[in-house]
Amino acid sequence: MNIKDVTASVADEIVVFQQKYKLVLHARNTLVDKVSRYVLKQQGKQIRPAMVMLSAQLCGGVSDATYRAAIMVELLHSATLIHDDVVDGAEMRRGLPSINALWKNKISVLMGDYLLSRGLLYSLEHKDYGFLHLVSEAVRRMSEGEILQIQKTRSLDISEEDYLSVISDKTASLISSSCAMGAMSATSDEEKIAALKSYGEYLGLAFQIRDDLLDYTGDSKKTGKQMGIDIKDKKITLPLIFALRNASLSEQKMIRSILKSSRKRAVKSSEVIAFVTSKGGLAYAAEVAEGLAGQAVTSISSFPDGPAKTSLLRLVDFVMIRQY
Amino acid sequence: MNIKDVTASVADEIVVFQQKYKLVLHARNTLVDKVSRYVLKQQGKQIRPAMVMLSAQLCGGVSDATYRAAIMVELLHSATLIHDDVVDGAEMRRGLPSINALWKNKISVLMGDYLLSRGLLYSLEHKDYGFLHLVSEAVRRMSEGEILQIQKTRSLDISEEDYLSVISDKTASLISSSCAMGAMSATSDEEKIAALKSYGEYLGLAFQIRDDLLDYTGDSKKTGKQMGIDIKDKKITLPLIFALRNASLSEQKMIRSILKSSRKRAVKSSEVIAFVTSKGGLAYAAEVAEGLAGQAVTSISSFPDGPAKTSLLRLVDFVMIRQY
Repeated sequence: MNIKDVTASVADEIVVFQQKYKLVLHARNTLVDKVSRYVLKQQGKQIRPAMVMLSAQLCGGVSDATYRAAIMVELLHSATLIHDDVVDGAEMRRGLPSINALWKNKISVLMGDYLLSRGLLYSLEHKDYGFLHLVSEAVRRMSEGEILQIQKTRSLDISEEDYLSVISDKTASLISSSCAMGAMSATSDEEKIAALKSYGEYLGLAFQIRDDLLDYTGDSKKTGKQMGIDIKDKKITLPLIFALRNASLSEQKMIRSILKSSRKRAVKSSEVIAFVTSKGGLAYAAEVAEGLAGQAVTSISSFPDGPAKTSLLRLVDFVMIRQY
Repeated sequence: MNIKDVTASVADEIVVFQQKYKLVLHARNTLVDKVSRYVLKQQGKQIRPAMVMLSAQLCGGVSDATYRAAIMVELLHSATLIHDDVVDGAEMRRGLPSINALWKNKISVLMGDYLLSRGLLYSLEHKDYGFLHLVSEAVRRMSEGEILQIQKTRSLDISEEDYLSVISDKTASLISSSCAMGAMSATSDEEKIAALKSYGEYLGLAFQIRDDLLDYTGDSKKTGKQMGIDIKDKKITLPLIFALRNASLSEQKMIRSILKSSRKRAVKSSEVIAFVTSKGGLAYAAEVAEGLAGQAVTSISSFPDGPAKTSLLRLVDFVMIRQY
């Protein structure tokens, strides 16, 4: 299963979206335009715009407002990725050098701000105030979530509750907003909009837990990133949280001393992986993700069957089985 | 003349603003809240909120909407200053360590995003769509202006026109928006709003040219920053643009070679200052600033006399004579 098959019911709409998106990204300033075109080249699976469109399709059909919502979401998502790469000092993004690697932090911070304000102005121009509210809320939650993560991770002491709160803010918020915006572009039925918002929230949570699991189990050839990188970065995720909770005091001490080692290279991620596996941390995280995926499915159970619903259900499966 | 005397006609309103602003800045997350409280400590002369209030006063009076506009502007301004300090690698801000110096770039980029979205949500909650439009436009222009500056400065080849375009986007845009928002909070008379927008634009341009001049002539004890720092940073401003335009080819070559020297310390700013002075660059920039200040005054000439108008006119004088 690949993502194109999953979102096949909006394949034509995605092509239209891409054309429109390209036009919106065009800028007068030559450097801004150049970086914008590079942002397009770096583009990923465009899963958020696809979710906007599938949600609209489920609620009545794709309209002009749906495309505007998709453009808005993708602009915001691109802006936050650029800032994330600055924040993480990332050198690569989807197989290409990151914006900060090519144009330094200065241009990157400013390009993020530019794309953010570009997205806001685009929605303001069209009086899409409902979208604006959802998206500003998501931006606030994403920055708060990242800050909470840095804050908690530093102390090597994060509870499952805090972890879920972090990934809800950091990842699920924009996915949830995307689905709500898509629904909002097709219907004014508050119950339907809320149902898709929930679907997005649960799917986003399941997605992030699976993503964090891949750091322990993923094939680096498929994921395109080195295994154990979160461990080296001292990002404490669900598998480790569970394992630490179920470890003896001396085991906890051992793991903490590994994670605290000051140099990245010195962190023995293989030992941490072995510990987490033996304590059942991987199985537990997989189980939590399964539960959330189930709730995503339940969220949209009252909608009638059809191509959009099939796609959204397959998207849940896709998130659960992906190895990359 | 100090700034408190200039804005005396809204002194009480500024106190109310500060109380309201503090409440808006409060955050649930303890680290976000801590950094927010530090942002308050670092606060400058709050000239933008004062301008919002003076503009409202001139157009009929300060209302709840005026405070909201002032809060919005100050949130956005704080957000862009935090990102600016990351972009410039600045270690100090108004006599205190910068946010990036205390909490690193990671937290700083995210705090900027947080304050930006906080400001947007605040306006959305109150359905202040007019403010939102003005302010998003300003954010877009600020990021574009900074990028244009980096782009042009790198080539050491910036025309007076490009320079004016950079400072208009980078500095005048938010001052101009502040005045327009203040006016908008008190009247729906489009002519009055446009007049204050112009006033802010001209004042902002004059302010930035004076600021750039202080790099050549300022007393570092008063300005709190080292003289010639723009020269060392290879920021080409109006005095130097004029001087280069009126120099022989060999003089141009000499100055270019000084500016191009790769190590900051090696840049002999005293030689550049002497060159610019001898070519009349300082006198020229002062003259351009005077002309713009005159246009700021003309922009509000049709308003009746009164305390608000007196304050706005004194603000022009303040910008023109300040030595810090």
